[in-house]
Amino acid sequence: MHETNKIYQHGTLATLIEGLYEGTLSVGELLKHGDYGIGTVGDLDGEMIAMDGKAFQITSEGQVNQLTDDVLVPFATVHFHQPDVSIQFENVAGSILEEQLLELYPYQNLFFGIVIKGTFSKMSTRSVAKQSKPYPTLTAVTAEQSEFSAEHIDGTIVGYFTPKLFQGIGAAGFHLHFLSDEMDMGGHILDYHLENGMVSLQPFSSLEQHFPIENDAFLKSNVNVAKLHDEIKLAEN
Amino acid sequence: MHETNKIYQHGTLATLIEGLYEGTLSVGELLKHGDYGIGTVGDLDGEMIAMDGKAFQITSEGQVNQLTDDVLVPFATVHFHQPDVSIQFENVAGSILEEQLLELYPYQNLFFGIVIKGTFSKMSTRSVAKQSKPYPTLTAVTAEQSEFSAEHIDGTIVGYFTPKLFQGIGAAGFHLHFLSDEMDMGGHILDYHLENGMVSLQPFSSLEQHFPIENDAFLKSNVNVAKLHDEIKLAEN
Repeated sequence: MHETNKIYQHGTLATLIEGLYEGTLSVGELLKHGDYGIGTVGDLDGEMIAMDGKAFQITSEGQVNQLTDDVLVPFATVHFHQPDVSIQFENVAGSILEEQLLELYPYQNLFFGIVIKGTFSKMSTRSVAKQSKPYPTLTAVTAEQSEFSAEHIDGTIVGYFTPKLFQGIGAAGFHLHFLSDEMDMGGHILDYHLENGMVSLQPFSSLEQHFPIENDAFLKSNVNVAKLHDEIKLAEN
Repeated sequence: MHETNKIYQHGTLATLIEGLYEGTLSVGELLKHGDYGIGTVGDLDGEMIAMDGKAFQITSEGQVNQLTDDVLVPFATVHFHQPDVSIQFENVAGSILEEQLLELYPYQNLFFGIVIKGTFSKMSTRSVAKQSKPYPTLTAVTAEQSEFSAEHIDGTIVGYFTPKLFQGIGAAGFHLHFLSDEMDMGGHILDYHLENGMVSLQPFSSLEQHFPIENDAFLKSNVNVAKLHDEIKLAEN
């Protein structure tokens, strides 16, 4: 029996913001802690989305690849998908949908998973390019991100809501990735409009936050908490 | 086999700062996740310290009581004690000892447990008084805390180091509680000087953060992240 009331995260957004892109956990190990999730790939080589126990990379060229178990990731969040509530929505902008979810459910202080399967009248995403050492900061990388857009596209959104107290550990608020059914478009979501689809929510009673305790760069890193919030805004929107 | 590389926390310091003192997890359940730890008691009825699988309350009158399994706590942190390193120290002020530990070990970005068994030439502690609803804020309560002091006293310190990124989830830096061998003095440590003793450290690769997901006051609470840091300084020192 899998624990469906727990969200598992390897690494933190803060260390990614600082430019620690070295992969520190294998995809095989990650998927032992969840069958749905999001993240990035070692060397920041694109966006990651996991569903049905498989992890996919969306590269900065827009290519979609299934990741093998040996690929290492620096930052990823997963859970075992078993939603508490599923609601049909039609013709709604992403930002409005997200507001409505927080009004409908008392989840503002919890981590919760969100999965949306449906048709999107608009989907706008980004992906980041593979980096090499010495790594630039995340804001420098996202300033040159690739952006993709599609209309009337079928696919799945996977992501999380992070309560604001946990800003820096994750990205406070909604953080969503997308993959099309045709496996030809996806990435970190910038904007979307849902034509119609099923929205599933799964609140978690626990966060298991796992650290790359063997990674020297992480152990020596010095997070600038004061400027972290501003940098997250620049990098994640 | 217990997981000794994980720290388990129920509740967050942030919600305690906001005045959410209602007990939301039983001591019996808490001790399933660790045999050493610290915390507080429902209604903020004193300081809590756990060792060897038993939890003790130090009341604002300075009385020490073993807590039964049915007592509820709003905020507590525990782990299964199995230190990675143990070092003998002599004649050192607490603040100097803590600086030295961070210089000796690369643990600044990790949660780690600290247990000190020895003789203390000086021990200064505080405890807080039981509150009733409507609860005042933690800074209001600690402004009227009871303080205790002792010289040349044998006992045990139990506590944690929290990396600065996790300020608000816990108290960033060292957060230590004390209980004397004679069970007649203890509480949240304000200051100490170690005459001689054994310092044990246990770094954790994971934090399991558990939320009181059934508690209405928690679900509705609105943490003021901006002023949180200042309030923690006032309440925890």
